[in-house]
Amino acid sequence: MSRIGIIGSNGRMGRAIAEAVEAAGEELAGGIDKDGDVAALAAQADVLIDFSSPAALEGNLDAAVATGLPIVIGTTGLEERHHWLIDKAAETIPVLQTGNTSLGVTLLAHLVREAAGRLGEDWDIEIVETHHRMKVDAPSGTALLLGEAAADGRGVDLADNSVRGRDGITGKRETGTIGFAALRGGTVAGDHTIHFLADNERLSLSHMAENRGIFARGALRAAQWLRDKPAGRYTMPQVLGL
Amino acid sequence: MSRIGIIGSNGRMGRAIAEAVEAAGEELAGGIDKDGDVAALAAQADVLIDFSSPAALEGNLDAAVATGLPIVIGTTGLEERHHWLIDKAAETIPVLQTGNTSLGVTLLAHLVREAAGRLGEDWDIEIVETHHRMKVDAPSGTALLLGEAAADGRGVDLADNSVRGRDGITGKRETGTIGFAALRGGTVAGDHTIHFLADNERLSLSHMAENRGIFARGALRAAQWLRDKPAGRYTMPQVLGL
Amino acid sequence: MSRIGIIGSNGRMGRAIAEAVEAAGEELAGGIDKDGDVAALAAQADVLIDFSSPAALEGNLDAAVATGLPIVIGTTGLEERHHWLIDKAAETIPVLQTGNTSLGVTLLAHLVREAAGRLGEDWDIEIVETHHRMKVDAPSGTALLLGEAAADGRGVDLADNSVRGRDGITGKRETGTIGFAALRGGTVAGDHTIHFLADNERLSLSHMAENRGIFARGALRAAQWLRDKPAGRYTMPQVLGL
Amino acid sequence: MSRIGIIGSNGRMGRAIAEAVEAAGEELAGGIDKDGDVAALAAQADVLIDFSSPAALEGNLDAAVATGLPIVIGTTGLEERHHWLIDKAAETIPVLQTGNTSLGVTLLAHLVREAAGRLGEDWDIEIVETHHRMKVDAPSGTALLLGEAAADGRGVDLADNSVRGRDGITGKRETGTIGFAALRGGTVAGDHTIHFLADNERLSLSHMAENRGIFARGALRAAQWLRDKPAGRYTMPQVLGL
Repeated sequence: MSRIGIIGSNGRMGRAIAEAVEAAGEELAGGIDKDGDVAALAAQADVLIDFSSPAALEGNLDAAVATGLPIVIGTTGLEERHHWLIDKAAETIPVLQTGNTSLGVTLLAHLVREAAGRLGEDWDIEIVETHHRMKVDAPSGTALLLGEAAADGRGVDLADNSVRGRDGITGKRETGTIGFAALRGGTVAGDHTIHFLADNERLSLSHMAENRGIFARGALRAAQWLRDKPAGRYTMPQVLGL
Repeated sequence: MSRIGIIGSNGRMGRAIAEAVEAAGEELAGGIDKDGDVAALAAQADVLIDFSSPAALEGNLDAAVATGLPIVIGTTGLEERHHWLIDKAAETIPVLQTGNTSLGVTLLAHLVREAAGRLGEDWDIEIVETHHRMKVDAPSGTALLLGEAAADGRGVDLADNSVRGRDGITGKRETGTIGFAALRGGTVAGDHTIHFLADNERLSLSHMAENRGIFARGALRAAQWLRDKPAGRYTMPQVLGL
Repeated sequence: MSRIGIIGSNGRMGRAIAEAVEAAGEELAGGIDKDGDVAALAAQADVLIDFSSPAALEGNLDAAVATGLPIVIGTTGLEERHHWLIDKAAETIPVLQTGNTSLGVTLLAHLVREAAGRLGEDWDIEIVETHHRMKVDAPSGTALLLGEAAADGRGVDLADNSVRGRDGITGKRETGTIGFAALRGGTVAGDHTIHFLADNERLSLSHMAENRGIFARGALRAAQWLRDKPAGRYTMPQVLGL
Repeated sequence: MSRIGIIGSNGRMGRAIAEAVEAAGEELAGGIDKDGDVAALAAQADVLIDFSSPAALEGNLDAAVATGLPIVIGTTGLEERHHWLIDKAAETIPVLQTGNTSLGVTLLAHLVREAAGRLGEDWDIEIVETHHRMKVDAPSGTALLLGEAAADGRGVDLADNSVRGRDGITGKRETGTIGFAALRGGTVAGDHTIHFLADNERLSLSHMAENRGIFARGALRAAQWLRDKPAGRYTMPQVLGL
């Protein structure tokens, strides 16, 4: 049994992780939020899960390093500077940072990379995602993560090849591009589909989250996996053995 | 048996209609294109099908009126002026003008209007379509036709409520809007889905064309239906008895 | 505000209805289960919702009639005898009995009937549903309800035309039949799709429940609607104004 | 440029291959059918494609061996004896035998094997396919091929774990099984979807053939790839470099 410490415990993800910890029969070491004492939390935990904010990252990493604790980072909106801090901490402790803790999405990204690497540019790639009506940005971070996987499989750069928000007189589709479309409505937790569209043939790979619980369970599984690893920076695909 | 005259016979739709005429055991009265003699064609036909260009419309209507022939108009890109010409011709002959001759799409539009009229604004409406890589505009005319049906069912104006090309920081979804997204790739003849997304519940209505033959068959069926009607302006739903 | 009395309050649906009552700002009059005192419950309620068992139905109806209370019945597994009891009670009080309280499914059944009535038998009808791994029967009651709507739209009897569990050497598809297929797995709350498959053209109507909450909300909405109706037997389509 | 010889040239696939040869700018060496002279055909060809019948296989292999020609075999209904003949021929010439020549399906099978190998048995596997109304058997050969890939990924035997034609009181789903469902209608050339259904999360991999041309193009590509290979028995995944 592992004692799990949650940073950002009052957020939507923090609460879902607490539920997942309980459901899995693990022990909740405690949780903190803004202005909480991360050092005190670390002292009682075997592993930390951080879904707080970029601003809090440096302090969280410091506390993890000071106590030699593994840490899973699911915080979004990280910049180059944060990744540098993570790399530095990873010299001392095991750190897993990811934009999506779902096992299904992680596997999907792997399959997308594989498919994009095998299929030629005569297979047009289109990514469409649906999220609830409260989501304020498009496309979703996960759609971009899948687009990166596709671009990576093709050996190209996503930034140079993505087409977003197609509308009006667009001209015919340019070979090699990767299209993105976003639907919004209802309470959709997150649907993602990657289409590979060729002459008279289509291959489509989809993931659907029925609710946010899967992201919490994935974060917990990552923490369990990370606990006895040596210092270093890890990724979700490694948790799955990909 | 009806003698069918095709205006725009060398276009993609014109050729598909000629095949449909043959498959249905009807008689092909002949076909003309730009610079063809529409009066001569009308003299040999029982009904005309026009998939040419807006510029040719006035001459085509004149020939149909002169010979008292019914005419099906599938030409796209019509403006107000053209609709006025059609209304005028319809005082003398039966005219059916439509943006989509597929029976499936026609029924779908009917179902969309019905659903939108029954469901409240807590059911967000999103329309997504996929077409082949050669299509130069987005959203498709059919997606707009379906959006009009949804807006009509709700008793609102589509122009005031549509959201297209969602991308970047969009803010949360505005109640009452109708979203459009367009995918492009491969040889997709035309997929359209209308999603109604509510709290924890979704209703989705879809149409898929496996190839363009269905539009030709629909145009032919409209022509057969129109042949013995009195003067007036008709629509595809009437052909289906909706 | 209505005071809602729940019969079968400890069942999965009973608990979900209690949550829906709270979320909607209505008042929970109380709940009973097997051996509970339905007369006492009725005395404190404005309307009853019954998701208990066929065996309890007669007593529940008696209590509703004695206090003149409207009652929504979502209990499944009813037999002819139960329907006779309901009809009798409906001479005195408003009663709404249904096999599915979801508004989306109710509308879907309406659209299916409409589509099946408009499309000829050259549009093959196939119904496929997916449910969680714990479901013990196939096809689902809702799939059968949708099949009945399709058969009704066509003016045929479902029992004479349904094809279930297609497997092995089946021979080619018989015109006019309605096919059923069932998928099972995971925690799927309930997906249903009705396909109309014609030559080169497909129309598909789908409903997805993200979780069971929608059935509870639908039951509550039915109760609210039923409260001030005169005696009589009502159905879900009436709640939607279909 | 390769000279392609087609065995079974009057069949549906034979004709589609001839079209694909022309579209690809390759040369059609000729085609034969029952009672045709395969030796004469082989003398004029660089590579043979055989979509004829099991009965003709031995003669076809003999001719290919005699002229040292590579041969692609897409004939279905082969038995153990035929595979023994193929193995024997493959000692002398390159032979590629496959139940599905579509590149998309071949890649899909690879992805299914990969996914099934990575995901535990808490991800229920369900395979659903749709084909035109004339198809006489269920599930499709391709659905079974995909089921084999899934079973292979899991390290189990498909025959011991498949559930087909689910109907009636089935009891809850057994862990580790692979379900099959078949829809029939219209002119559907072939849709296949493999669902992996877990707690609150779903992964779905789909292939759609818009028409049969893709199988012909795949056979041609296999022939082009096979032409300069050494003697041996090859498979479609090798053509894709999987």
